[in-house]
Formats: sequence, C-alpha cells, structure tokens
Amino acid sequence: MGVAFVKGHGTENDFVLLPDLDATLHLSAELVARLCDRRAGLGADGVLRVVRTADEPEARHLAAEAEWFMDYRNADGSAVEMCGNGIRVFARYLVEAGLTEPGELAIATRDGVKQVRVGASGDVTVDMGVARFPGPDDVKVTVDRRVWPAVAVDMGNPHAVVFLDELDEAGALLDAPLVDPTPPDGVNVEFVVRRGDAHVAMRVHERGVGETRSCGTGACAAMVASARRAAPDTPATYTVDVPGGRLTVSTREDGHVELTGPAVLVAVGEFAGDLLGSVG
Amino acid sequence: MGVAFVKGHGTENDFVLLPDLDATLHLSAELVARLCDRRAGLGADGVLRVVRTADEPEARHLAAEAEWFMDYRNADGSAVEMCGNGIRVFARYLVEAGLTEPGELAIATRDGVKQVRVGASGDVTVDMGVARFPGPDDVKVTVDRRVWPAVAVDMGNPHAVVFLDELDEAGALLDAPLVDPTPPDGVNVEFVVRRGDAHVAMRVHERGVGETRSCGTGACAAMVASARRAAPDTPATYTVDVPGGRLTVSTREDGHVELTGPAVLVAVGEFAGDLLGSVG
Repeated sequence: MGVAFVKGHGTENDFVLLPDLDATLHLSAELVARLCDRRAGLGADGVLRVVRTADEPEARHLAAEAEWFMDYRNADGSAVEMCGNGIRVFARYLVEAGLTEPGELAIATRDGVKQVRVGASGDVTVDMGVARFPGPDDVKVTVDRRVWPAVAVDMGNPHAVVFLDELDEAGALLDAPLVDPTPPDGVNVEFVVRRGDAHVAMRVHERGVGETRSCGTGACAAMVASARRAAPDTPATYTVDVPGGRLTVSTREDGHVELTGPAVLVAVGEFAGDLLGSVG
Repeated sequence: MGVAFVKGHGTENDFVLLPDLDATLHLSAELVARLCDRRAGLGADGVLRVVRTADEPEARHLAAEAEWFMDYRNADGSAVEMCGNGIRVFARYLVEAGLTEPGELAIATRDGVKQVRVGASGDVTVDMGVARFPGPDDVKVTVDRRVWPAVAVDMGNPHAVVFLDELDEAGALLDAPLVDPTPPDGVNVEFVVRRGDAHVAMRVHERGVGETRSCGTGACAAMVASARRAAPDTPATYTVDVPGGRLTVSTREDGHVELTGPAVLVAVGEFAGDLLGSVG
C-alpha cells in the first residue's frame, strides 16, 4: 500500500497522476502498463508522474525555470515529450494539491518548459508553441478509397488536416488513414468541419493509437489550418469541438498557439499492494 | 468529496465498490453510468454497492440470513440480480475491510442469498446454484454463416454452449451470434475448446454487451456442458480459461455448481466532488 494517485481527464483524454515529489518511485514500462490497464488496473491513456524538477536527473537542467517536471508516459510505458491535455490536468493538480499558486506557471516537460495559465478553478490554458506549415502543398489523405487534399501542420509533432462537409464522411476510421507523403515518424490526421464563425468540430486519428476522444496538438493543428483559410496571419480565437468535449484555441501576435480547456480531477486514492509489486 | 470507493476485478471483470454500509447513498442510474465511464469517470463493468441488508428496504427480508447485500448495477445503471465474478470481489472486500471473518459467508443478492467461501487471501468460491439443461436438443448458433450445434444451459440466466476445435473459429465476434431458437430475453453464447482432461478454454459473447473478458455464469455453463459430454452425472472439477484469467468450476453431489477464482482489489480512494454532483 501507500502509492498515491489522482485520476483526471481533459476532454476525456484521461490520466493517472502519480505524485512522486522527491523522485523516489521506480516507474518501469511494465508497471505503467499495469496501472493503465482499463480492467486489471486503474485505467488511463497515460501516467503523469509529478516530480520536483531539481530531483529528477533527466530534467534537473530546467530546475531554474520550472519547479515541477511532468514525466509523461503512454499507456504502453513509453516516455512521451508533451501532451496538451495532460499538462492542463497536471497544472490543475498542482493548484488543487497546494503545490503552486493559481496564475502563470512554468512546467518542465521533455519538450522543454511550457507556460500554463491556471485559475483557482475552471479551464486551464497552455502555450503550445508556434505552429508551422511545412508543406508540401499537395498532401493527400485516403480513407476507404476516398481521397481528400490535406494541410500539413507541425505542432512539434506532425499533422495532416482534412476539411470535410460532414464528420461521418471519414467513416469508422478502424484503420489508419493513408497519408501521401507520410512524414518519417508517421502523422496524426484531423478531419474538420466548419460549425460557424471561428467554430469547428473535428475527429482525430492518432498515429499508433487510432481514433481518440481528444488530441491537444490536433485541436491546435485543426484551428490554425482553419484560421489560415478564413483570415491568414490574423490572430484569432476558435472553438474546437472534439468527441470528448470542447476546447478553445487562440493564435497570438507572436505566432504562439494557446490551448484552453477543461481539466477535471475525478478521484484520489492509493493503489493496493497486489497491483504494484515493487515500485520503490 | 467524501464518497469512498474500492476498485477491483475478478478475471478482468471489473467493478467499482461503493461502501455504503448504512444505506445513505442515492445511486441514480445516471450517477452509476458516470462512475463507470472509462474516460470521464473511474471506469468499470459495474458498481457493487456494499450495504447492510437490514438497512436496505429491497433486501431487508433477507437480513436474518445474510448481513451484507450486494447491490449490483451494470455500467448503464440498470439493477442486476447476480454476478459470479462480482460476488467474489465483494466477498474479498468484506474480509479486507474487516466487515466479516474469512470462512463460509452468506451474501444477499437480488437473486437470493448466495454462499461464498473466502480465505484470508487468495481465491474466492461461490455456490452458483443448480445448472439445468432446458433444451431443446437442436439449438443452432450461427456466426458469419457458419452454423454449429449448441447446448442450452440455464444458470439462472440463459446460455448456449458451442464446442469448437479452435477459439478463433468464431471470428471477431463483433456482432451477436444468431441463436435458434433464442430464449425470450436473449442468450449468452460460450465458445469452448478442450485443452486437456477437465480443462477447457472459452470465449463468451454476453447478451446486450458483446464479447467480454470473463463471465462467471458462462464459465459454469461451459463446464457443465463439457462435463456432461465427458462423464454425465459425475461430480467433477474443471479448469476454465477465460480471456481475462483462469477459473475453476466444480459440480457437487447435490448438483450445485461452485465457481472459484481470483478477486483482486486494485485501489482505494474517494471520488472528487466534480464527478459526483449530489449523491446524498
């Protein structure tokens, strides 16, 4: 007994947070997979270990900039750079646990230090960095022999954004869409429809995962591709509906993209010894 | 805050236990569905409310026979009579929480009082009652145009047991198998292969749910149909492998079927207020 957790989600992208403030947990890939198992474990898309930056060897060089390091692991145990939904839940936890004050906050990640804005309650905003349009201009996405043009967007990770009239045109999305050309490490695909002025809805197929309820960088990619069609180079704020909820994406004068959305803490508790084996 | 839970599973059939000893929780179908949501809630196949039989109006008439009532709800919120995996987890919780002593234990359910045998640790055994073979003798199960003969078994709920050479003969089981004749309230279908003497493996398609990792009554139905083929009317003990683990099923001289298997408590905690709304 004794390993504490918090369960939370952002637009139904869900996480097990492990407060490990002084970096004493040994978190093997196998243990992460066991915790994230949705039937034999607690269940989540990934684990967010909460650790003091100065105490974590891999993040210590960022300790002057950010007190807390988000050690994000996918449900399969692999280490991940950054997650736009996860970092909102991480920030909400820091405030709820009294580990930081509400306001502007810097959080260290494997993708560097991220700036987050978190109130005493409600939505959380994260600076997702600068979006780029790396091209080429003739990207094609194919699903079930239907072919659409797509916009390539780089949000630190690669996206292909397809505009549709109806979200169900993309079908069941049981298989990964074919993207030509495909970036070397694969690509996430967003299917986007217009819902109104500065309002879109999307579905997302994440590389290596499948269709998901939400994807933070995907929502940003969908927004910047939509905003470029409507009014290039003009800062704007969009509502982006994803299957798991509603996000807000803004572009600033300096080109940075801000992602705003819910961060909900669902439960707090401790794992039972049987599940954990040896974690110390 | 303040509503406690325990998460547990039996052969990966998983449950949120709600200790509500004095029957003060108001557990609406909508709240059950929210708790069982695997992304926005804690996630489970169902909820097991733990309540003193004498304090629960619907179970009070059983208070002389069993101190504790298992109020089982499916993930959609509907009330369920009985669950062979759930009652093992329920019994393990009673012992771990110090609410009962290890040993022979009577637990009240909507299907009457069940007898359970639970040690200080390890597997839990439950008396699943008498199996019946209601017929007819010419039941047919069809999957993807393949047709097999099946044995109708009644374990309090209806089953059709199909014997195969290989479990993957039944295909992906994305749709419900066609059963002719189908009992009025539908039927669970077990696909069973022989693994050795008194050892079978099975897959199960549960009515209204789809293929699952385990089904307690399904394991019993698979065993009694297998044992009748091998040695009719002789008490026997079988190992029954399900996708989520291993169960043991025995038939006794008096015709009762006993189900034995793991009951694992994974985590303990409290729900956060946001998820609960008003439950008092």
